[in-house]
Amino acid sequence: MSDPLRLGIAGLGTVGVGVLKILRDQADLIAARAGRPLVATAVSARSRDKDRGVDISGLAWEDDPVTLATRDDVDVFVELMGGSDGPAKAATEAAIAAGKDVVTANKAMLAHHGQALAEAAEAAGHVIRFEAAVAGGIPVIKALTEGLSANRVLRVMGVMNGTCNYILTRMQSSGLPYQTVFEEADKLGFLEADPELDVGGIDAGHKLSLLASIAFGTRVDFAAVQLEGIGNITIEDIEQAADMGYRIKLLGVAQMTGRGLEQRMQPCLVPDSSPLGQLEGGTNMVVLEGDAVGQIVLRGAGAGEGPTASAVMADVIDIARGIRLSTFGQPAAGLLAARGASSAVPAPYYLRMALMDKPGALAKIATVLGDNGISIDRMRQYGHTDTAAPVLIVTHKTTRAALDAAISGMDVTGVVAGRPVALRIEQV
Amino acid sequence: MSDPLRLGIAGLGTVGVGVLKILRDQADLIAARAGRPLVATAVSARSRDKDRGVDISGLAWEDDPVTLATRDDVDVFVELMGGSDGPAKAATEAAIAAGKDVVTANKAMLAHHGQALAEAAEAAGHVIRFEAAVAGGIPVIKALTEGLSANRVLRVMGVMNGTCNYILTRMQSSGLPYQTVFEEADKLGFLEADPELDVGGIDAGHKLSLLASIAFGTRVDFAAVQLEGIGNITIEDIEQAADMGYRIKLLGVAQMTGRGLEQRMQPCLVPDSSPLGQLEGGTNMVVLEGDAVGQIVLRGAGAGEGPTASAVMADVIDIARGIRLSTFGQPAAGLLAARGASSAVPAPYYLRMALMDKPGALAKIATVLGDNGISIDRMRQYGHTDTAAPVLIVTHKTTRAALDAAISGMDVTGVVAGRPVALRIEQV
Repeated sequence: MSDPLRLGIAGLGTVGVGVLKILRDQADLIAARAGRPLVATAVSARSRDKDRGVDISGLAWEDDPVTLATRDDVDVFVELMGGSDGPAKAATEAAIAAGKDVVTANKAMLAHHGQALAEAAEAAGHVIRFEAAVAGGIPVIKALTEGLSANRVLRVMGVMNGTCNYILTRMQSSGLPYQTVFEEADKLGFLEADPELDVGGIDAGHKLSLLASIAFGTRVDFAAVQLEGIGNITIEDIEQAADMGYRIKLLGVAQMTGRGLEQRMQPCLVPDSSPLGQLEGGTNMVVLEGDAVGQIVLRGAGAGEGPTASAVMADVIDIARGIRLSTFGQPAAGLLAARGASSAVPAPYYLRMALMDKPGALAKIATVLGDNGISIDRMRQYGHTDTAAPVLIVTHKTTRAALDAAISGMDVTGVVAGRPVALRIEQV
Repeated sequence: MSDPLRLGIAGLGTVGVGVLKILRDQADLIAARAGRPLVATAVSARSRDKDRGVDISGLAWEDDPVTLATRDDVDVFVELMGGSDGPAKAATEAAIAAGKDVVTANKAMLAHHGQALAEAAEAAGHVIRFEAAVAGGIPVIKALTEGLSANRVLRVMGVMNGTCNYILTRMQSSGLPYQTVFEEADKLGFLEADPELDVGGIDAGHKLSLLASIAFGTRVDFAAVQLEGIGNITIEDIEQAADMGYRIKLLGVAQMTGRGLEQRMQPCLVPDSSPLGQLEGGTNMVVLEGDAVGQIVLRGAGAGEGPTASAVMADVIDIARGIRLSTFGQPAAGLLAARGASSAVPAPYYLRMALMDKPGALAKIATVLGDNGISIDRMRQYGHTDTAAPVLIVTHKTTRAALDAAISGMDVTGVVAGRPVALRIEQV
């Protein structure tokens, strides 16, 4: 058996502790599989003395993760601090410069700096792996980069933020409004310190941008992700969508269109009988579509100590086994900048609006839609409450541009109270 | 870019043709991902002149796959002939002896000879990869061997024969009896030349034995798989199971128990709301459970030209990328023979029997169950048809041994017509 592979771990929160536990509890199993022992040699975290339920007294301690990343007794720098910049980025750059391989769970850092970091690592002959950054324990980076390597990828979709899926499914099961369930989730500790990272779709958008790079051979382009959070989803939307056979999910979709790469992270309707529609609670699901393989669905825990540590350690074991791939599946220096396309792919849409109690109101709305080339698949008008009646429309396939034009046109008619809600119905 | 990786392909049926099409259509994409071109140099099949929809005139032809496997211009021998022995095995052995890597879709060969072939390949420093042998296009070998490499695997489950799942779901949706749907499937070309490979669970059992070896670090032991086909499943079982919230699936389960390795491929009841319960038609699903990662579910096409060729080519691209793993995830020479355990894990069972119209009949059955330590969770008696009344019983958790003893005991009472049907209810 070869020499041990030595890990320097920066960040001892939930995931870091999970990694130390796996190293402690599964040493023999992992050595047998990796062909060599794996050992943590040094760690770094905010506080040295906190009780984490795992003994770190035998490990070297560094206050500064940059120092940790460059230690002679570290072969692989395991970055579990988080944050797109600051210490995480500085330490990762230092590790690469010092000739280390890097394993990270940091989607924000890679979404913003993945291209530069990958180029630096690859120029120096080192690898950066990030299975844990996307969909927690689900081996989706591996499935896409390696399992589907013979496919032209057609589309990548995913529910990749468990907190949002928890909120949406809890609203549905309880009938409670968004704000109440949001506060519940906060009390349960499900939300990031900045909740907008979750409910604004930013965290999930980071993940989508990484998958898109691998899928389409393009540079990571998080800025081009169309982001829309779940904060405007009402309990009425959820109930009415359910009534028509749909579920609302914060769904990420990346696909290459004739006009460029489309990356969307937004609330969508999906059929309630589809695997995505049936996904409940905090679980994640990623759907990969390739020209040869068809549709592959992967489902599992998207967060948590065990699942995320499992993904981190899978990357480390890959390195121990001698698996050395380009960060995004092909050399970073050769990745092209994708032209970004904005909702170029037509789809049916769900529209909800409050129609004023005026003669001919519905006819005016229907006319505006028709004028914009949008035909109606299904329409429901509910009884009037006060002065406005809720109206639901499911359109046939149309473009987002035509829909936005129609919504502006509705505004002019003066028969719609407030702004209509428009949600894409994704064909899954 | 490095030299091309040269493939010799034996077998030009559906999968072989799919591989040639991918090599032809995705050459640039694959070269970018693999870091080198991939080319087929030579092929072998039963008939040279058959029109396969793909041009093989530029490739060297060999009548004998053994000759093909040992050609100097072949780096990787791609075995797509099938059959556990005969030419497939001879050519694979010849390839290994001649210093080639091997990629195969042949589950039967590996289930019977995987240990010897892996030992031979590893002793010579070569690899055997077989992603396409299990669950078609789903990258489950990779997910288990690499994605879950940091986990102690707790259980592996799967619906891995699309034909059986087609038959069972078609029975349910149509209300037609087994024999009628079996004949339909035959006419549609869904069945193997020897249908028992499908409906007897043998093909799926081969796959399960390969997954079990990777999951538990044991030698492949197909002989120890408890095999039970779907031929005795009646439309009444399907309807009554549905009535109680279950679906019947040909489900493979492998788990390590205190008494040894349990491998079962048998019809089971699973909750209709579970991912396995919701799996319709010819699709495959594999569920992997690890101590850290929890439950990972993988779903996709289990057969067909594109999906299977996708898996074959993923293995080839892995080799081109320099990924060189032991066949079963750790050196074959170190794999232990598992003690086989037979249904050691207790479970609830579904029991169906025809009860004669005699006073006290039900009491006698209940007594026999009680005498064997089996308690009843739910019971339904239907109206009498002629002289016997269908009775359904769902038991609480019990062992198969206790259940078999109870069934023998029922026989003695003289109140049961025929032999009761007993199906395990797998907790998923």
